[in-house]
Amino acid sequence: MPQNDLLLRALRREPCERTPIWVMRQAGRYLPQYREVRRKTDFLTLCKTPELAAEVTLQPVDLMGVDAAIIFSDILVVPEAMGMTLELIESKGPNFPSPVRTRADIDRLITPDVSERLRFVENALRLTKRELKGRVPLIGFSGAAWTLFAYAVEGKGSKEFRHAKEMIFSRPKDAHVLLSKLTKVVSDYLLLQIEAGADAVQIFDTWASVLSEDDFKEFSLPYISEAVRAVKSKYPKVPVIVFAKGANQVLGEIAETGCDAVGLDWTMDIGKARWQLSDRVALQGNLDPTVLYASPERIREEAAKILSKFGKHSERSGHVFNLGHGILPDVDPEHLKALVGFIKSESLKYHPSVFSPN
Amino acid sequence: MPQNDLLLRALRREPCERTPIWVMRQAGRYLPQYREVRRKTDFLTLCKTPELAAEVTLQPVDLMGVDAAIIFSDILVVPEAMGMTLELIESKGPNFPSPVRTRADIDRLITPDVSERLRFVENALRLTKRELKGRVPLIGFSGAAWTLFAYAVEGKGSKEFRHAKEMIFSRPKDAHVLLSKLTKVVSDYLLLQIEAGADAVQIFDTWASVLSEDDFKEFSLPYISEAVRAVKSKYPKVPVIVFAKGANQVLGEIAETGCDAVGLDWTMDIGKARWQLSDRVALQGNLDPTVLYASPERIREEAAKILSKFGKHSERSGHVFNLGHGILPDVDPEHLKALVGFIKSESLKYHPSVFSPN
Repeated sequence: MPQNDLLLRALRREPCERTPIWVMRQAGRYLPQYREVRRKTDFLTLCKTPELAAEVTLQPVDLMGVDAAIIFSDILVVPEAMGMTLELIESKGPNFPSPVRTRADIDRLITPDVSERLRFVENALRLTKRELKGRVPLIGFSGAAWTLFAYAVEGKGSKEFRHAKEMIFSRPKDAHVLLSKLTKVVSDYLLLQIEAGADAVQIFDTWASVLSEDDFKEFSLPYISEAVRAVKSKYPKVPVIVFAKGANQVLGEIAETGCDAVGLDWTMDIGKARWQLSDRVALQGNLDPTVLYASPERIREEAAKILSKFGKHSERSGHVFNLGHGILPDVDPEHLKALVGFIKSESLKYHPSVFSPN
Repeated sequence: MPQNDLLLRALRREPCERTPIWVMRQAGRYLPQYREVRRKTDFLTLCKTPELAAEVTLQPVDLMGVDAAIIFSDILVVPEAMGMTLELIESKGPNFPSPVRTRADIDRLITPDVSERLRFVENALRLTKRELKGRVPLIGFSGAAWTLFAYAVEGKGSKEFRHAKEMIFSRPKDAHVLLSKLTKVVSDYLLLQIEAGADAVQIFDTWASVLSEDDFKEFSLPYISEAVRAVKSKYPKVPVIVFAKGANQVLGEIAETGCDAVGLDWTMDIGKARWQLSDRVALQGNLDPTVLYASPERIREEAAKILSKFGKHSERSGHVFNLGHGILPDVDPEHLKALVGFIKSESLKYHPSVFSPN
């Protein structure tokens, strides 16, 4: 059990004395110390060198005081492990020069032994865990099958994802074959991370945002559920967070996947989400990442709004403060530090001490 | 009154024998006939040459059989009319080389006499109206103040709109000054278009999608309301459509601006939206634009879902079929034609003849 286990208690909706905070992409370019490490190596080598990955994973814990570490990696190491060639140029976004377009392309993908092909993540987790010395919990993560599908089929990030959409609309059977194949690897990968020391895992479905409600329910949700089940059937006590960007219309369905927490992007009112989900799951989020461009005073005002919208905690509520998406690379680290400090003090009043076990 | 006034009746929630259809960006690059016109001229010159603008406006009416024409123009002619230099390269997106960043920049913007500075739009509307010969209604449009603000402050399209967000978070007073100034011109511009023959107008708030609910309510909604009021107080019978992309959480608030119809992007379930708004306004939308990449059979299936989700019409319901965003430039025009034909026949059964006035 980590000394600071607030994240795990919040995710399990157990009493907390205050709201824990971590932020997506907290080990990243906004930190000069991260840029210093990156000067010596490219992005993918950084992911694949456990010593370096562990080093940058720990930076925000040491420097920013966040309540959790999240292993430094990239969601696209999964399709790479399945045989795709991946080019990761951090400023340009990822690229698969040979995207998956045909049934033959899908069949060519392998279902790897993740403990072999993704051993570098396992090693990075073990090393980080050791170096954390139990200070805060360590989060593992994977992309959701749909988001990995979108990248693998499109070959890169996109506004419209025309090829990915074309496959779901024109060849839904092929799409399901690929999604199933991805889900198997995602599940194995999450389990591997837990075995290597991850105290909680998050499934990122960034590209849920381009799907209609029906298409999300057909091409993303069942695969998220399957991955959650895979984790929960083996490690029922390890909290699972599902963050599906833009999926504000289907929060109820996401909550029913069996996950412990639902991540919210900043376009959703967290008060309404809590009301709608009635504390059946914990919520994570959801400050607009661009708020961190404003002054510390203004950041505090906006963060206070989120805490107040969530409101007083009940005996069965959980809130993990986070941004509504990844921290932006040109944010001043001092601004994040101000946010972290503010949440630690301001959130105290929303956690009635009467709920403490006695 | 146009011979085919289905659009206007649907927007006013009057009985219709079938559901009308038009699609956003229907006069555009997917049409070879449009590309032919564009070969001879650049995008901005096309906007500013009434004969050419009228020609491309009519193309989808003649070629695709849509139930409305929408004047060919660009939302950014408004900030240009206010004194900003605009570069429009269709493949690259718009660019303001000198974006509005400071209070001095805001003060420097003029509140033009739109009938002078935007006379080319007025003339294009008059010419189109004449050439339409009353076949279908003609739609005028403007960007919402927030979307124009986002472009003017950022200088171009963006994923995060860091400068625009910085202004609303750090200098909200300045932001409101600029939004008010834009709203005055937007209102005048919509009135000008109605005076030149627009039978209905649409307000596009594309970048509503990057705002949290609270920020939408502070920095976009009041200005949309103001523009709607400006139109309605002078032309109460001219229908106003508000399309705020990604604003699924605030459809109720949008419906209360006094507009006649609310546009939906494809991520919202139109059946749920109708249920939520209880036919207080008409709805417009909302097929995923990428569905048009699929086969005509598949397009029909997806379009049928939308009609069926909307369901049977009541005496006070209105539905205008549309895509959930603009038609994509590499869509096969035959696919749009198939969609238009299908909506015209398939929608008949959702319009009980019992509601016809008798």
